[in-house]
Amino acid sequence: MYAWFSTDVTIRPDDIDLNNHVHNSRYVDFVLAARYDQMARCYHMSMEEFVTMGFSWVNTETYIQYRRPMRLGQTARVWTRISEFYPRSVRVEFRIDDAKTAKECCRGHQMYTMVSTIDGRSVTIPDDIRQRYAILEQTEDNTDGAP
Amino acid sequence: MYAWFSTDVTIRPDDIDLNNHVHNSRYVDFVLAARYDQMARCYHMSMEEFVTMGFSWVNTETYIQYRRPMRLGQTARVWTRISEFYPRSVRVEFRIDDAKTAKECCRGHQMYTMVSTIDGRSVTIPDDIRQRYAILEQTEDNTDGAP
Amino acid sequence: MYAWFSTDVTIRPDDIDLNNHVHNSRYVDFVLAARYDQMARCYHMSMEEFVTMGFSWVNTETYIQYRRPMRLGQTARVWTRISEFYPRSVRVEFRIDDAKTAKECCRGHQMYTMVSTIDGRSVTIPDDIRQRYAILEQTEDNTDGAP
Amino acid sequence: MYAWFSTDVTIRPDDIDLNNHVHNSRYVDFVLAARYDQMARCYHMSMEEFVTMGFSWVNTETYIQYRRPMRLGQTARVWTRISEFYPRSVRVEFRIDDAKTAKECCRGHQMYTMVSTIDGRSVTIPDDIRQRYAILEQTEDNTDGAP
Repeated sequence: MYAWFSTDVTIRPDDIDLNNHVHNSRYVDFVLAARYDQMARCYHMSMEEFVTMGFSWVNTETYIQYRRPMRLGQTARVWTRISEFYPRSVRVEFRIDDAKTAKECCRGHQMYTMVSTIDGRSVTIPDDIRQRYAILEQTEDNTDGAP
Repeated sequence: MYAWFSTDVTIRPDDIDLNNHVHNSRYVDFVLAARYDQMARCYHMSMEEFVTMGFSWVNTETYIQYRRPMRLGQTARVWTRISEFYPRSVRVEFRIDDAKTAKECCRGHQMYTMVSTIDGRSVTIPDDIRQRYAILEQTEDNTDGAP
Repeated sequence: MYAWFSTDVTIRPDDIDLNNHVHNSRYVDFVLAARYDQMARCYHMSMEEFVTMGFSWVNTETYIQYRRPMRLGQTARVWTRISEFYPRSVRVEFRIDDAKTAKECCRGHQMYTMVSTIDGRSVTIPDDIRQRYAILEQTEDNTDGAP
Repeated sequence: MYAWFSTDVTIRPDDIDLNNHVHNSRYVDFVLAARYDQMARCYHMSMEEFVTMGFSWVNTETYIQYRRPMRLGQTARVWTRISEFYPRSVRVEFRIDDAKTAKECCRGHQMYTMVSTIDGRSVTIPDDIRQRYAILEQTEDNTDGAP
């Protein structure tokens, strides 16, 4: 299995909604922020580098299940990993925990299709890019540990 | 089957992200805006009335599939309907079309659990509330038409 | 004096913050949405047309004074007008009212500098563009009326 | 003069707008996030504690001047200080720098009125609260340094 990585996201007052909780759509923004961070820091291929190579990732599907609401003052620990490679896309699993208690707040997955920035069409993921993303869970140096 | 209703949502510049499209999490905000509008206008039980009665809906699950990105200048026509009643929750289906071309931009579903605002616990949906939400598709006066 | 124009902005649930009011920074988003609408509809020069011509407006300054908080269920009527032309910039005044009661919720002004999209540098506003924006208040056909 | 404090805010992809910069209204959200952090960490009176005492701060005025746009990958270093006490309000100055280069990106000020959470009316700032906020710039232990 591929490695899980984590990114801590600070909850801001503008993330809180009329229920005094993190607004439901902001959790997905936290996952995106974590992916950007982890692309650069963990996979050593930042989104900028990706775009320079003429590629981008397009989010085609998101599923999220809410377990516990988060509040201002908590820190969102966002765990993500690649769970599956397809010829032109990847499936990313995520889980957001309260950083202090490690209690799960939500979990889900996203599908991302690789596209060319020239015409926006989907492309086959090149082998060298696939290899950089294919960090296995057992590689202790590269993973933050499973959630 | 239960009736579909639609709400037109104007896309604002702050909805647009670095890809020059509506930011992926904002579509879910559009669905929530449509549900609030339709609760009051179509089911004749506004969220405010609901809260006054001591109830609220908690979003426990969202699935969204992206087909075509939307841009500034387009209007999002948000279709939603109740697709299933459970003892303590409802399943809502949605679809967002470009209002001008009627082309589908995304679709998905959400699960909402009914809770008491006193202790936040889930409650069985009372019969009279269920009846007000159970508007059937054939009732021409009450539905905007299927998408 | 230059004409005031108005745009109605529907308040969405994701605009509401932990105080149960429209979040303070969202009023500025409403003003931007109104300017985009009014550029196309009232001045007959949409932002898209503007960009096609190689120009863009950069917001360099915003001042906003909050009078009455807005809530979900209200409609924001956003009034804006150009209050001053400078060689390379314009000063825009705005006011947001509750559409139903016409009570003022906030007011302020913004400075926008015209820039070239090629190098991002400020440019002198061309005469023909200035003329299209210089709609006077007395021109009854073109104005929605003063707030 | 009163002490400046700083809070680093990580820029998220959802903060970026169609110009590929941090969206203009999000800088104000960064300032609010910094004030919440500094209320707890620097003034030792968190917003939660404040609310427990029956008080809240209402933002009545914001002025912001934009100097340099920020981009994804940069970190916003948000400096704030109280610049003036009034009987029922405080004036807060802020400045946002790029954390790496210390170059100024925007600056401005905000007015906050102290209100009772019971009736929402403005109240005279109690002496003990004023004293906790009146940290002077020379107190080296308590300040992060002037920007």
